[in-house]
Amino acid sequence: MASVKLIEYEEAGPEVRAVYDDIMATRGSAWVNNFWKALAVDPALLERTWTSVKQVMAPGALDPLTKEMLYVAVSATNGCGYCINSHTAAARAKGMTDAMLAELMAVVGMANETNRLVQGFQVELDAAFAEGGRKD
Amino acid sequence: MASVKLIEYEEAGPEVRAVYDDIMATRGSAWVNNFWKALAVDPALLERTWTSVKQVMAPGALDPLTKEMLYVAVSATNGCGYCINSHTAAARAKGMTDAMLAELMAVVGMANETNRLVQGFQVELDAAFAEGGRKD
Amino acid sequence: MASVKLIEYEEAGPEVRAVYDDIMATRGSAWVNNFWKALAVDPALLERTWTSVKQVMAPGALDPLTKEMLYVAVSATNGCGYCINSHTAAARAKGMTDAMLAELMAVVGMANETNRLVQGFQVELDAAFAEGGRKD
Amino acid sequence: MASVKLIEYEEAGPEVRAVYDDIMATRGSAWVNNFWKALAVDPALLERTWTSVKQVMAPGALDPLTKEMLYVAVSATNGCGYCINSHTAAARAKGMTDAMLAELMAVVGMANETNRLVQGFQVELDAAFAEGGRKD
Amino acid sequence: MASVKLIEYEEAGPEVRAVYDDIMATRGSAWVNNFWKALAVDPALLERTWTSVKQVMAPGALDPLTKEMLYVAVSATNGCGYCINSHTAAARAKGMTDAMLAELMAVVGMANETNRLVQGFQVELDAAFAEGGRKD
Amino acid sequence: MASVKLIEYEEAGPEVRAVYDDIMATRGSAWVNNFWKALAVDPALLERTWTSVKQVMAPGALDPLTKEMLYVAVSATNGCGYCINSHTAAARAKGMTDAMLAELMAVVGMANETNRLVQGFQVELDAAFAEGGRKD
Repeated sequence: MASVKLIEYEEAGPEVRAVYDDIMATRGSAWVNNFWKALAVDPALLERTWTSVKQVMAPGALDPLTKEMLYVAVSATNGCGYCINSHTAAARAKGMTDAMLAELMAVVGMANETNRLVQGFQVELDAAFAEGGRKD
Repeated sequence: MASVKLIEYEEAGPEVRAVYDDIMATRGSAWVNNFWKALAVDPALLERTWTSVKQVMAPGALDPLTKEMLYVAVSATNGCGYCINSHTAAARAKGMTDAMLAELMAVVGMANETNRLVQGFQVELDAAFAEGGRKD
Repeated sequence: MASVKLIEYEEAGPEVRAVYDDIMATRGSAWVNNFWKALAVDPALLERTWTSVKQVMAPGALDPLTKEMLYVAVSATNGCGYCINSHTAAARAKGMTDAMLAELMAVVGMANETNRLVQGFQVELDAAFAEGGRKD
Repeated sequence: MASVKLIEYEEAGPEVRAVYDDIMATRGSAWVNNFWKALAVDPALLERTWTSVKQVMAPGALDPLTKEMLYVAVSATNGCGYCINSHTAAARAKGMTDAMLAELMAVVGMANETNRLVQGFQVELDAAFAEGGRKD
Repeated sequence: MASVKLIEYEEAGPEVRAVYDDIMATRGSAWVNNFWKALAVDPALLERTWTSVKQVMAPGALDPLTKEMLYVAVSATNGCGYCINSHTAAARAKGMTDAMLAELMAVVGMANETNRLVQGFQVELDAAFAEGGRKD
Repeated sequence: MASVKLIEYEEAGPEVRAVYDDIMATRGSAWVNNFWKALAVDPALLERTWTSVKQVMAPGALDPLTKEMLYVAVSATNGCGYCINSHTAAARAKGMTDAMLAELMAVVGMANETNRLVQGFQVELDAAFAEGGRKD
């Protein structure tokens, strides 16, 4: 149970309702999930977070499904159960199959393993990888 | 500087050379990066890790560029500088532009933010997201 | 359920009872929470941890409420549910309002976001920030 | 060295310059630090992140120094060197003394220790701490 | 509940059954735990992960109990409840007593504390510790 | 470079000198490493941390080498370079060979991988592992 009261639409003030309305309109859904109802304890926090998420997850140089899978990868690395479940569901709704989820997790697992091997052995960077290989 | 001696090709035994040869052949490159030279302290660790990475990063239900970007997302979340640089370089070699990198980082940043907001407020999972939205 | 048996006051030996008594006296409360009952599996671990926590959380250059909020910030970043709930409750008991909790979480979220952006882009430190700006 | 080119004021477009100008005006300083110059690879990312940081760090229910110390606590827990140095410098500029920094770190250290003890023993939450002790 | 369907022996194909059989034979047990049933969504992921775990956890330069305790230490640091419980149980089955578990946790707690103090103060490495003290 | 001034023996007050003396006597060494010189900014923090580390790392139900290897495992998982190097050096001084270090890292890598796979798939705990398999 959340450490702040979840604000339902009925009891929300106009600022919060405006965000809830935009969440539902953007997603074409008839409900708002608990995360936003918790942030509504502070309407400015709610509005800022939603505006940012909406911008970041919109189609751009990367497509929305790739973005959802990146979100799942971070959430699995951080061990956030709510986030893993909600973004796995969102990725599935955008077309992620079980085969894709399994490969995503395989990469997440391998990256977590080799990240710690690199750090555990304190391997120094090869010159060829300096600056992430940028060419400018 | 690494906490174990990096093993160069010239001084490596046949098991290690076989892995180095496969790394270079698979990548079409003429050198092996420091990570593998550190793992070579234990030929079984080297062989097992390379075989796993090769399998995991091969084309499958996800394409190799998506896999590299997932690797970067995990590495950024774990703060592994070597890994961030090497996989950013690998992603660039597979076609990632600066615009794609910026959107990748925007998702990583946002996911790290909302992961901690969800946990900080201890938000409970919505029924609709249970089991990551699976339908079987 | 904990991986060690929680030791209740009635079954505790004199070393453990002495710590429990000091916890209750220091807090002006009539009970001891589960964390300490788990540490009691090893009386030396219990005594050392309690003595350290008592010292660290006492008023000093920082006031107790600020210290509790810092504890919540770390616990949220580590995703420790028990710790988040117990220290949020402790902060509330010391005067933290919902508005303060929301701003605390906003900072935690933003810090987690920008920490990962800095690392993801491998930004190098500005000279002006070297040594955390110390002047000695 | 960063994995994207840092954008200097002289070479920046009008959107980026507007953000740089606001950063300098808000801080009363004559320069912009590297973090923002890296984000400028994507003007929307730069603008969104700055706007959010500016809002979050403004005086509110918590004062700016407390907010900076919370930022340092999160950054230390995440091991982000750039962030630790830059926010320690910012906290010092707002009045944090060495004595306050030492107590801040003592809390961060203790919280990281007890977070892992709680998780390592899988201690279950006391009823009194449910919902972070909220009363509504 | 897992985000993929757990595959029971009865419904598994021959590749998955072969791994399950080897898990049970290696452990001398009559059942397979949920982790492997989740990985079975992708038989290659299951086979690769089991083969690696089997190799890594086999007796070698370190004994199996020490390896299980290292696994618990990492899992506690990452806050993975399933992993903490399953590897604590495995360590107990190999002879870990409550006294050993308590000392293991004391080290894990202390290491998490001092890791963050070192990073929080950005302490630079002493020359004597360079390269982890290697002598070659 | 550290964010606080490192306190050398010559300039230290009597409380700090007493701790430095005990560190050198306990270790049979003629110098004190930078970590302690940073903590000396706050003599109470220095004294408390040293006393705790000394107790925790002393021989007990676990031997000192096992404890050092657990420290390395946690430090690698947290990516603390100073800590990895200093505790790898300490473990070597207590008898850890390259073969043992390689197996230690193999376990650390594998644990980090499977921790994230378990969390990524949100696998639920098997009844047999409840309470870490305790029997009391």
